[in-house]
Amino acid sequence: MASKEKITIVGSGLAGPLLAISLKKRGLDVELYERRPDMRKVHISAGRSINLALSTRGIYALREIGVWPQIEKIIIPMRGRMMHALNGALTFQPYGKDETEVINSVSRADLNIALMDAAEAQGITIHFNQRCTHFDLRERAVYFRDEETDERKTVNSELVIGADGAVSAVRRDFLKLQRFNFSQQYLDYGYKELTIPPNSDGKHAMETHALHIWPRGSFMLIALPNIDGTFGCILFLPFEGKNSFQLLQNNSDIVKFFEENFPDAMALMPRLAENFFANPVGAMVTVKCSPWSHGSRALLLGDAAHAIVPFFGQGLNCSFEDCTVLLGLLDRYGPNWPVVFREFGAARKVNTDAIADMAIENFVEMRDKVGDSRFLFKKKVELALEAKFPGLFVPKYAMVTFHRVPYSVAESRGRIQDRILSELCDPIAKIEDLDWQRADELVHRNLTPLEDA
Amino acid sequence: MASKEKITIVGSGLAGPLLAISLKKRGLDVELYERRPDMRKVHISAGRSINLALSTRGIYALREIGVWPQIEKIIIPMRGRMMHALNGALTFQPYGKDETEVINSVSRADLNIALMDAAEAQGITIHFNQRCTHFDLRERAVYFRDEETDERKTVNSELVIGADGAVSAVRRDFLKLQRFNFSQQYLDYGYKELTIPPNSDGKHAMETHALHIWPRGSFMLIALPNIDGTFGCILFLPFEGKNSFQLLQNNSDIVKFFEENFPDAMALMPRLAENFFANPVGAMVTVKCSPWSHGSRALLLGDAAHAIVPFFGQGLNCSFEDCTVLLGLLDRYGPNWPVVFREFGAARKVNTDAIADMAIENFVEMRDKVGDSRFLFKKKVELALEAKFPGLFVPKYAMVTFHRVPYSVAESRGRIQDRILSELCDPIAKIEDLDWQRADELVHRNLTPLEDA
Repeated sequence: MASKEKITIVGSGLAGPLLAISLKKRGLDVELYERRPDMRKVHISAGRSINLALSTRGIYALREIGVWPQIEKIIIPMRGRMMHALNGALTFQPYGKDETEVINSVSRADLNIALMDAAEAQGITIHFNQRCTHFDLRERAVYFRDEETDERKTVNSELVIGADGAVSAVRRDFLKLQRFNFSQQYLDYGYKELTIPPNSDGKHAMETHALHIWPRGSFMLIALPNIDGTFGCILFLPFEGKNSFQLLQNNSDIVKFFEENFPDAMALMPRLAENFFANPVGAMVTVKCSPWSHGSRALLLGDAAHAIVPFFGQGLNCSFEDCTVLLGLLDRYGPNWPVVFREFGAARKVNTDAIADMAIENFVEMRDKVGDSRFLFKKKVELALEAKFPGLFVPKYAMVTFHRVPYSVAESRGRIQDRILSELCDPIAKIEDLDWQRADELVHRNLTPLEDA
Repeated sequence: MASKEKITIVGSGLAGPLLAISLKKRGLDVELYERRPDMRKVHISAGRSINLALSTRGIYALREIGVWPQIEKIIIPMRGRMMHALNGALTFQPYGKDETEVINSVSRADLNIALMDAAEAQGITIHFNQRCTHFDLRERAVYFRDEETDERKTVNSELVIGADGAVSAVRRDFLKLQRFNFSQQYLDYGYKELTIPPNSDGKHAMETHALHIWPRGSFMLIALPNIDGTFGCILFLPFEGKNSFQLLQNNSDIVKFFEENFPDAMALMPRLAENFFANPVGAMVTVKCSPWSHGSRALLLGDAAHAIVPFFGQGLNCSFEDCTVLLGLLDRYGPNWPVVFREFGAARKVNTDAIADMAIENFVEMRDKVGDSRFLFKKKVELALEAKFPGLFVPKYAMVTFHRVPYSVAESRGRIQDRILSELCDPIAKIEDLDWQRADELVHRNLTPLEDA
């Protein structure tokens, strides 16, 4: 792969540097442009939720570029969900079938820094403070404005890759193309970041190895552990109506709301109201579009191509898997970009559509169903079925999170398994009463062995 | 209604002048801005399909503003579909239960001219050649560039209404709002306008009072009569692949394609290839968005709010019905715009979504099913059921086209009726064998009397 054509990647968030490293290792000439300043020198908010959940698909991509050993040091494994009832009672639901199946809390900023370090170690230049103002597809020219100096710059290259997130500037030019399909759909819910500080001994104030959830039906609070002993919390509430951000206008509104709904969490948040008003309310959007590419000139990737809501913890993992799939096609076809990009869209879009839809469905599961004993019973039965029929009955959550089967396969098998599970669980109250003969029939009649990637 | 606040309507196509007339009659101050020149002075293509099908909803709105008598003179009633088989055999399927249920072919340009004449007769100014370059929601300022003189103009008004079609310029500014939901989805099919000239006696070369269809499974040709003796034809083909526009590159491709697929139509098209290359291939888009309004400052209406594909003949009728619904709310609440607009979106969007989806479904019906004898048999049974159970079983096509029931009601009742129809038709081959007792049971158990608007 000796082509020395220049590739410009807009966005040095997460997929950007990961892809840049992979392309550089294949002998391609690539540079990164990033709107924000260098966060290793300037303290900035990474712009969105502080913690991400890294799982199998993301880890696979990090191993491939050799960065996993560095990342492994900055993650905290979470073995399951810890549900907090209103009365403070705790219920733990494991994510996986054993201790190897965990998701990993990682700071977005730390992960970003590790990837940028690795990119620079490969000799890749990252241009900071470069806001993409406009992209001209026909001229293959990207226009930047320096956020500090206001200086304008035009970058010409053979190929432009937009890895610049859910509100991608590169994507705006795609909207001018003939027949570009595009959709952006916002949830009626917003989110607010809060913090639980460490105990006086510097340790975590709650169980470290869990993702904490306060499910309250139409809304919820969650908390993920950080390596500095804090928990990054996120409150998800409707923008308007009953129990909404609209109704939380002053300190006493907030204190009252938390006293009523999250008394145990509130006891761990000495600066609750201050935190609350320091951070804006974020919006959550699902973006779908097609095509993701234009000839050999431009490609959209990651959130720029398919932003999803955060409730399956797959945004990061999905973007990294984009890179895995794209690189597989590059290795197969060489830098024959029109073919690589066409195959990439054809292979990948059905899967990014599937995880987008599953992420929205999972919101209902997290904020409502996890507080329900029947739901938790079914989750136990699911794990029992997986133990009994390994490689055949694999829970949807596990297929998405601990396997690399295509998301669309996880979605369709998940639907079949839901029906099996309902038929087996509906008549019983205890796992001891499970009709194993019927389970055997249903599983073997409806499911083929799972082919992992 | 004495408020003299100024209203700017962008777009003097069809919904624009109709709404302007209605607002002016209510004492409001309104002006129209139109990108194109005055088509009464300059000959221009109206930009899209030449013929439209005017039906009950559209006629109702035209009657309300008193313009129907003028329009009635320039329409041609079409009583049903005339299907052209490959061997030239003709099959007629009536649209309605009797001669009162017809759709009306009308020239887009003639309709537009009649509405502009009526608007000016009301004292409304139409500013031509004014391209909206940009709309500033916060400043309520619309920026225009004169297409002839290049002169720039800024128009400030209390309220801006975007009636500027599927690629609305006013809507672009809505995309900058927080949490604006937006979707544009193109069909993989394009269309091309062709013409069948009159016979030497000036009369129509085929049955005048029908919409002609050449259904060919994955593609089709249609023809609508004009009052000048011509037929406006539209060829619908995939952009790419088998039987696609991509494969029709030169005269011999076109002649061969028409000889193979539309020999009887081709015999009536002496200038086929010339026509073919004179017109571009059009694209068809479905646009959905929300909200359609911003406070008391701006509203999207018609195609700008909800562009649909043309296969139910409802684009025009739906846009006119927007005006009917909006004016009903204005008469109820007065010019309390935030309330009027909120109620308008709440009442209307479910219905425009429904007709958008039904229009896509109808494409399959037109290009494929109408050539199928079982489908035509079911259509006969539908009419028999309507005759037997008037006001109870009303075919979906009739509910959409000849009634003013909300589109969403037509869609949901249509689904119920499809199930009834399948149960009754599947076991029989002749209408004489219909089980009327079962029909009576099914209809009365599943349907309530239709409440028309």
